[in-house]
Amino acid sequence: VITLLKKWRVLAEKNVFRTKWLSIRQETCEIHNGKIIDDYFIIEGGHVALVFALTPDKKVVLVRQYKHGIREIVLEIPAGGIHDDEAPEVGARRELLEETGYVADEFVLVATHIRSPSKSAILDYVYLAKDAYPTGATQFDEAENIEVELATLDELRKLLHAGEIRDLGGVAAIYQVLDYLDRLG
Amino acid sequence: VITLLKKWRVLAEKNVFRTKWLSIRQETCEIHNGKIIDDYFIIEGGHVALVFALTPDKKVVLVRQYKHGIREIVLEIPAGGIHDDEAPEVGARRELLEETGYVADEFVLVATHIRSPSKSAILDYVYLAKDAYPTGATQFDEAENIEVELATLDELRKLLHAGEIRDLGGVAAIYQVLDYLDRLG
Repeated sequence: VITLLKKWRVLAEKNVFRTKWLSIRQETCEIHNGKIIDDYFIIEGGHVALVFALTPDKKVVLVRQYKHGIREIVLEIPAGGIHDDEAPEVGARRELLEETGYVADEFVLVATHIRSPSKSAILDYVYLAKDAYPTGATQFDEAENIEVELATLDELRKLLHAGEIRDLGGVAAIYQVLDYLDRLG
Repeated sequence: VITLLKKWRVLAEKNVFRTKWLSIRQETCEIHNGKIIDDYFIIEGGHVALVFALTPDKKVVLVRQYKHGIREIVLEIPAGGIHDDEAPEVGARRELLEETGYVADEFVLVATHIRSPSKSAILDYVYLAKDAYPTGATQFDEAENIEVELATLDELRKLLHAGEIRDLGGVAAIYQVLDYLDRLG
């Protein structure tokens, strides 16, 4: 693609907010037209792993849990933050096990999504876990409280259409993997 | 659905970071097991409108622009923040016009997505703009610099599969609308 678009140039940056979970960086930038702006804020945080775990009898592993940002109990696929010292697939395997007790031999990276291109460099890593099976105990974080459910692929599509699954990361991940499975045939 | 999951209770809250673009709220919460945590951070911001604008000859209006969070030139559907005083559809119509110069009579709300259920209450409003047509001039924000492109539905699917479109909000929105169009037949 031929494009006349120009990237910005970062002239200065500083941390303006820092917690264990979330940090904010303020940047001074020269933008495309040469103008300088000094109040561009970028959200820093670890990347995210999402797992579409499919059992041998073609059921998808879902998790229902309370999420305090939206103040709702939501139905999602297993997902969580990748630790700084983890490869994305290692984080995906850990989150699947912790939240559901399921494991799988083969993890396929189906897509990576940019969570919020204007505000952050955080990526979602979308995995298909093939022939997933339960090993027993879940290992929740202290703030987690999760119920595990299984859905057929038809049920999963209905949950999407009805808005029962509507977290952005999960919706994009589920559609990507369904599309990938359709293309495999 | 019968669930034993419990919502949290907010005991105290305060603003700990505020800019025109982004604010952070710190909350003290009683979580599901009765424990008190005093360091829960929530990102505040306006909701987002995304527009899948389809022309009478079944082409989708795309925008290519530099996004400084990820430091990349990205291909997306038109999208942007809904203003505090705007209804979501009004914001969607404004963003489509500003970024592309296109308008449409009929906007259909196809889905709403929770952008980040743990961290925020921000929603994505996904619209299908039917029979969209160009009126002429775009009206970029000062920090915007946008190239407009058209793609057929087949080309759009190939862009998704190839990872050429990979912003999370856009991927979820495009799949939702393609699915909606498929179901309409």
